[in-house]
Amino acid sequence: MKLGMATGEVYLRVSAILVLVLTACLVAFDTQTKVIVLTYEKKATYKDVNALKILVYITSAAAGFNMLQLCKHPVSAYSGGKFKGSYIYMAWISLFLDQMAVYITFAANSAAVEASMLAITGSEALQWLKVCNRFTRFCFQIGGAVICGYVASILMAVISAISAYKVFRLYSPKWFLRLKSR
Amino acid sequence: MKLGMATGEVYLRVSAILVLVLTACLVAFDTQTKVIVLTYEKKATYKDVNALKILVYITSAAAGFNMLQLCKHPVSAYSGGKFKGSYIYMAWISLFLDQMAVYITFAANSAAVEASMLAITGSEALQWLKVCNRFTRFCFQIGGAVICGYVASILMAVISAISAYKVFRLYSPKWFLRLKSR
Repeated sequence: MKLGMATGEVYLRVSAILVLVLTACLVAFDTQTKVIVLTYEKKATYKDVNALKILVYITSAAAGFNMLQLCKHPVSAYSGGKFKGSYIYMAWISLFLDQMAVYITFAANSAAVEASMLAITGSEALQWLKVCNRFTRFCFQIGGAVICGYVASILMAVISAISAYKVFRLYSPKWFLRLKSR
Repeated sequence: MKLGMATGEVYLRVSAILVLVLTACLVAFDTQTKVIVLTYEKKATYKDVNALKILVYITSAAAGFNMLQLCKHPVSAYSGGKFKGSYIYMAWISLFLDQMAVYITFAANSAAVEASMLAITGSEALQWLKVCNRFTRFCFQIGGAVICGYVASILMAVISAISAYKVFRLYSPKWFLRLKSR
């Protein structure tokens, strides 16, 4: 059963990497050119909006981070009947990094959603015009990208729950932060 | 030591509630009136930006949720030497709700930060004007509010880590998802 969880985690991480890369590509390769007045044309790219730029960087970084986590050699908590102290430090570090990664990805994605919502609705109070009525295809692709981003965030949240499970099950159910004697 | 963790959790939840209420109040009671041309004056409130409205609702809801969690009677996993099955269901539900709360608060806060960044910098590509050079005090107060929002998110993340610890330490370190025999 130990092996079962380890392979499950590998599958989850591989899916997370694929969805993260898909998100980054959808945003980064999204362009649309529109003729505004006669010969003046305008090209929309992700570089026009800071939130989208940040989303590309962060999803790429998160994909790389998950790739590194995959390379980590899977170690067992016990070797020859003895508990290994190094296991728990590794598990804590892994849990901490996984949590950081999921929160940062989630935040970047939510920021991109907010910027997109402003582009769709505009803001009368702030006198900001709608942009998506002109660049419709561009906006639909960004919409797909943020949905992928949320899927990736959910996958990473599950992965970090597994990381937490790996750490916390080593502790005693009766005593606070005391390692259990198997 | 069991009592130690329980009181720790109570303190954390009370601080989270206070910071969440502070965030909601800072945003909700933030107004600034500016004379634009002679007799025409404009009033900036949080209702001008959807992200800020959502932030007020969500931080209030999160404060209420933590209040409810405080009312929950603290139960022990064992009564009279026997493991209580109802404990683990409660702990799983509590973990799930805590996780939801922290992610939603964090997302709402990040969306508000993105909207604020756009208000500070404007966007040349989208022809959106800066707003914060006119409503400076208003923007500073929103800045303080989102910092409070992040503090609240961090507190809630720690609370949900404690929830996870409470659930996962009941499981065996050697067998997958099998409850341990103390």
